[in-house]
Amino acid sequence: MKESKIPVAVLGATGSVGQRFVELLANHPWFEVVELCASDRSAGKKYKDAVNWIMATPIPPQFENMIVKKCETGLMARVLFSGLDSSVAGDIEKMYAEDGCIVISNARNHRFDKDVPLIIPEINYEHLELIKSQKYKGAIVTNPNCSTIGMALALKPLMDNFGIETVNVTTLQAISGAGYPGLSGLDIMDNVVPYIGGEEEKMETEPLKIFGKLKDDSIEYADIKISAQCNRVAVLDGHTENIQIKLKTKAEPKDIIEAWNNFRSAPQELNLPSAPEKPIVYLEQANYPQPRIHRNLGGGMSISVGRLRECSLFDYKFVALSHNTIRGAAGGTILIAELMKAKGYFDEL
Amino acid sequence: MKESKIPVAVLGATGSVGQRFVELLANHPWFEVVELCASDRSAGKKYKDAVNWIMATPIPPQFENMIVKKCETGLMARVLFSGLDSSVAGDIEKMYAEDGCIVISNARNHRFDKDVPLIIPEINYEHLELIKSQKYKGAIVTNPNCSTIGMALALKPLMDNFGIETVNVTTLQAISGAGYPGLSGLDIMDNVVPYIGGEEEKMETEPLKIFGKLKDDSIEYADIKISAQCNRVAVLDGHTENIQIKLKTKAEPKDIIEAWNNFRSAPQELNLPSAPEKPIVYLEQANYPQPRIHRNLGGGMSISVGRLRECSLFDYKFVALSHNTIRGAAGGTILIAELMKAKGYFDEL
Amino acid sequence: MKESKIPVAVLGATGSVGQRFVELLANHPWFEVVELCASDRSAGKKYKDAVNWIMATPIPPQFENMIVKKCETGLMARVLFSGLDSSVAGDIEKMYAEDGCIVISNARNHRFDKDVPLIIPEINYEHLELIKSQKYKGAIVTNPNCSTIGMALALKPLMDNFGIETVNVTTLQAISGAGYPGLSGLDIMDNVVPYIGGEEEKMETEPLKIFGKLKDDSIEYADIKISAQCNRVAVLDGHTENIQIKLKTKAEPKDIIEAWNNFRSAPQELNLPSAPEKPIVYLEQANYPQPRIHRNLGGGMSISVGRLRECSLFDYKFVALSHNTIRGAAGGTILIAELMKAKGYFDEL
Amino acid sequence: MKESKIPVAVLGATGSVGQRFVELLANHPWFEVVELCASDRSAGKKYKDAVNWIMATPIPPQFENMIVKKCETGLMARVLFSGLDSSVAGDIEKMYAEDGCIVISNARNHRFDKDVPLIIPEINYEHLELIKSQKYKGAIVTNPNCSTIGMALALKPLMDNFGIETVNVTTLQAISGAGYPGLSGLDIMDNVVPYIGGEEEKMETEPLKIFGKLKDDSIEYADIKISAQCNRVAVLDGHTENIQIKLKTKAEPKDIIEAWNNFRSAPQELNLPSAPEKPIVYLEQANYPQPRIHRNLGGGMSISVGRLRECSLFDYKFVALSHNTIRGAAGGTILIAELMKAKGYFDEL
Repeated sequence: MKESKIPVAVLGATGSVGQRFVELLANHPWFEVVELCASDRSAGKKYKDAVNWIMATPIPPQFENMIVKKCETGLMARVLFSGLDSSVAGDIEKMYAEDGCIVISNARNHRFDKDVPLIIPEINYEHLELIKSQKYKGAIVTNPNCSTIGMALALKPLMDNFGIETVNVTTLQAISGAGYPGLSGLDIMDNVVPYIGGEEEKMETEPLKIFGKLKDDSIEYADIKISAQCNRVAVLDGHTENIQIKLKTKAEPKDIIEAWNNFRSAPQELNLPSAPEKPIVYLEQANYPQPRIHRNLGGGMSISVGRLRECSLFDYKFVALSHNTIRGAAGGTILIAELMKAKGYFDEL
Repeated sequence: MKESKIPVAVLGATGSVGQRFVELLANHPWFEVVELCASDRSAGKKYKDAVNWIMATPIPPQFENMIVKKCETGLMARVLFSGLDSSVAGDIEKMYAEDGCIVISNARNHRFDKDVPLIIPEINYEHLELIKSQKYKGAIVTNPNCSTIGMALALKPLMDNFGIETVNVTTLQAISGAGYPGLSGLDIMDNVVPYIGGEEEKMETEPLKIFGKLKDDSIEYADIKISAQCNRVAVLDGHTENIQIKLKTKAEPKDIIEAWNNFRSAPQELNLPSAPEKPIVYLEQANYPQPRIHRNLGGGMSISVGRLRECSLFDYKFVALSHNTIRGAAGGTILIAELMKAKGYFDEL
Repeated sequence: MKESKIPVAVLGATGSVGQRFVELLANHPWFEVVELCASDRSAGKKYKDAVNWIMATPIPPQFENMIVKKCETGLMARVLFSGLDSSVAGDIEKMYAEDGCIVISNARNHRFDKDVPLIIPEINYEHLELIKSQKYKGAIVTNPNCSTIGMALALKPLMDNFGIETVNVTTLQAISGAGYPGLSGLDIMDNVVPYIGGEEEKMETEPLKIFGKLKDDSIEYADIKISAQCNRVAVLDGHTENIQIKLKTKAEPKDIIEAWNNFRSAPQELNLPSAPEKPIVYLEQANYPQPRIHRNLGGGMSISVGRLRECSLFDYKFVALSHNTIRGAAGGTILIAELMKAKGYFDEL
Repeated sequence: MKESKIPVAVLGATGSVGQRFVELLANHPWFEVVELCASDRSAGKKYKDAVNWIMATPIPPQFENMIVKKCETGLMARVLFSGLDSSVAGDIEKMYAEDGCIVISNARNHRFDKDVPLIIPEINYEHLELIKSQKYKGAIVTNPNCSTIGMALALKPLMDNFGIETVNVTTLQAISGAGYPGLSGLDIMDNVVPYIGGEEEKMETEPLKIFGKLKDDSIEYADIKISAQCNRVAVLDGHTENIQIKLKTKAEPKDIIEAWNNFRSAPQELNLPSAPEKPIVYLEQANYPQPRIHRNLGGGMSISVGRLRECSLFDYKFVALSHNTIRGAAGGTILIAELMKAKGYFDEL
């Protein structure tokens, strides 16, 4: 029944992540978007006039004429999905959390706050408990960086089964990861940009928190050495990552592939609406995965891996691919919200 | 004087490397293309009718109506540039070498023949002496793979100054490296193909021979450990490489940059027509080098490097870029020929 | 019930149109693909090994290991979808029609056979009656060229309501229209190819037959003057067409837009499985339609139109967009089959 | 001698047209860039720090550290090349003209001022006389829109030889025409945008002034009917135009091709430094011209035409191609300056 849905709002609804929230939440069984919030420049306009819609499907009709609101307190919704730009996300998200809202954010600002969990639902859902130590009336929960998520998911079953000592990763990232307008066509057509500001640092540090252990009311960081090199390529959606790993205990290729293929976690067990049946899909074909063919596996929520082979400098090398604006942003954030609802975190709203 | 130019032929003249040979040799001060050879399918036709010209400038007028010949003995030219496909290059090149021609080849077939030098003129010109032990009336000299050349050039001054223990490389390679027609537009637009058949093996083995030492009449391979991961991206020309290195002796970033910027070698000292003034250009801007902007530095014969920074898993990481069909193929091969002429290897032809 | 589905086969199943047939028929409520046929080179292999799959979703699992057959008589299926290349389609399709099969073809070979209908289900379904005069034991029915279909659909309601005297069209066509491998990435990246062999002739003649009148057992061609200019652009799917028209009777812009938006025809009335609810969607936004955003409207079976405005040389100009491999090829062909089934043409099979 | 060069400045030097000015003027035999002017945001910075350089060759070294100035009076240079954005060009150009400078502008603001000439040097150089009636101490001269220039040049010899009644044009325009950053990569990759604000109006009106006759101190507009449809495609540089024409007097295809190939005008006769030997090149190959292959003909100053064929609705149709930021912007503007110098317009500066 529509009446029983939880009313939610999207912050930064006109941006590229915001658009993806709008698209993915349009027919959500548990959540109903009742408010779209954006910058003062957009506020007061119909959504269809305020947004430069770049999704591959048209604006869901129910949102076309919804009037965009400012990012101010006093919203009807108590669960807020934030696709805000990091230049403003820090303060606005804090404002809403103080106002009693649960903000689930895709922005980087609060990711390393001591009491803010940085969640990938299949990996560290137990970190959600951290919010109980937050000083806010509401809470802030964060989603990791898009390039971190694909890598961390690929590493999770190997971490569990064999342990990981070092990770070396080189990314070939889609331009949608830079938001909209993001890269000029003149900068990326027939080109590679071998630099993404702050991205390598995020990939080298976020996994340490994600794979960390909840001890009392803080996270004890994991002990993994990671080096990242990040590149932007002429792809619309889908981050491709060339990953090399050194394991703690020996494993055969077939063990690794089996660990990937058999991996299931809380979102699958709880049957969350956005949870892919298989979080990780191993592809046998030598030239797979490829972003245009595989980014939409599991509705964009599965990651795919392939080309597992031995490496003379590490133990193994392989390729991982994830949809950066679905699993890596809006979809991953929605999955956190679903997990929180299933675990009772929204009960008192 | 035109009369004094050395007559040369291009083998595989209708392919993508062959076209680049034709373009680069059109106004060469030392060599004059007197014959264009290709498959039986093209033989007998005017070059402009046999070729699907894909260069960014039109066919040089003097070649438009030149009749394409079969790859048979009896050519006027004694110096042959081979852009043949590896499916046929092995036998044809051998045939010409037995016939007394000097074949300088871009094909992989003879690269690891014990008595065939694998040359990057700035690195191991002294290996040319190997041809004296060849059983051919003529000789075969080979040019390395396009992805090897950029990397090897970037490594050379570091090898000389600090020594190198291990190299880890991930490539983002242009589609022209796959020849013509090569990749279908449907396979590469909005996509990455994280696999290039045989490429990783070439990058892991060719440098061992190139950096090897000439001992008597064979090459003693260098002792470096290399791991390579190769990807095809939507770029027309220019291979971008993310490289990590472990040095034998400690070096500061400024020492490394100085080593790159000061690097000069035989082609520069001999003032060879195709030699770039600076074989290696270090770019300071954080998001450089980029294939579309820097592939044509030094007429496509300079490589560019940038983003040198420390690495937690190796000593340093950086980005290198080279024009894969100029420095990495036709231009590099022509530079070998120029070096051979300057060193007297063509004197007896 | 699965048992009650009509068994069908796909001819040319490894090509780009064939792949689209396989994708679209994977879960079809009326048809079940029981055989995949292709060239001798592919025959005998598992489909997954024979095909270079280029769709944006993986191969439907039930077809992965299906053994590809030769294009020979003796198939189980009596309804055949042909995505054969025109170099072989003529004879093979005739062979099957003589054998008693109903061949619904996307190839151009039989389109202008006097007794072969050239069908767009929303426009001229009554032409299907032509097959009764065919000499075959079975029958051949054809689907028009991809660039014709989008234009003809856009013209249909205007033809019905106002009459059309002249049509001038310039196309910007997707590369998937050239099949696989089709255009080399080197030919189309950062480029336009302002020529598509035979395409302009098809666009200038096919509509005359499609809009013709069935008289006894032949088609009396429509009297429209059409001029076409065809270009290939760097788009994966979706043909964009700039169209100018001169009407027979005066019409206001709002009349034309209303005619488009209200258009419904037999496939909609019969509720055919692949029929889009709205065959034509008019988009108000000034810079719409765009291939990447609108090609999938109605599951790729709706066309979209926009930018209707007066023209100083004709009466009106506007932009039309259609998905060239769904509505313009495999999907359109399947819709013909659905129409034939609904109209009883398959009853005696 | 360097001393004798005319000192010039570039207005809007950090924009995409401004960058092209800087590139093309770097080694100009007559002009020396002594000042680079831009917005207040850029003023005071070194050029290399103020600009996001997008040309395919690096910044000419002499400009790297030149300090960018504000657009204020008091410049050393008296000849100014304006690549200013139209949002500010109107006032700034007027300010400089009042200050005594000759402003040669690529912006649209003053193109239709009654006393401002709109010049294509090969077509209507005699319109330069208009500036004598300007009220400014200096003068303003304008360059037409990039999409107009290619078309107008292609039409000029036909106008002279056969007369033209009507012109119908559909464009496929490069993204560099939108300036920098211009189109987001997310808007143009795998896409067409069938709308460019104001562009169709420019193409329909500018040729009327360009082909007009100078009568006393104003231009009597030409009597041609033009209809334009403009599209943006995924091409970096080079506008492709599908053109249809109705002539006043009958002409055979060979007459038209001869008229194109033989066309020479004032810039060629005066041997201006930027004048291409052949302003128009007819290409015989069926699928030519193509932007990536032909945009740089004549250093980007020649236009190319091809595919001349009869048209059932007009007399002829053909394809024209021009480099939009060289011939269609900075290069065309520089050619105007060269013409003015050669004709003595700079003598009194």
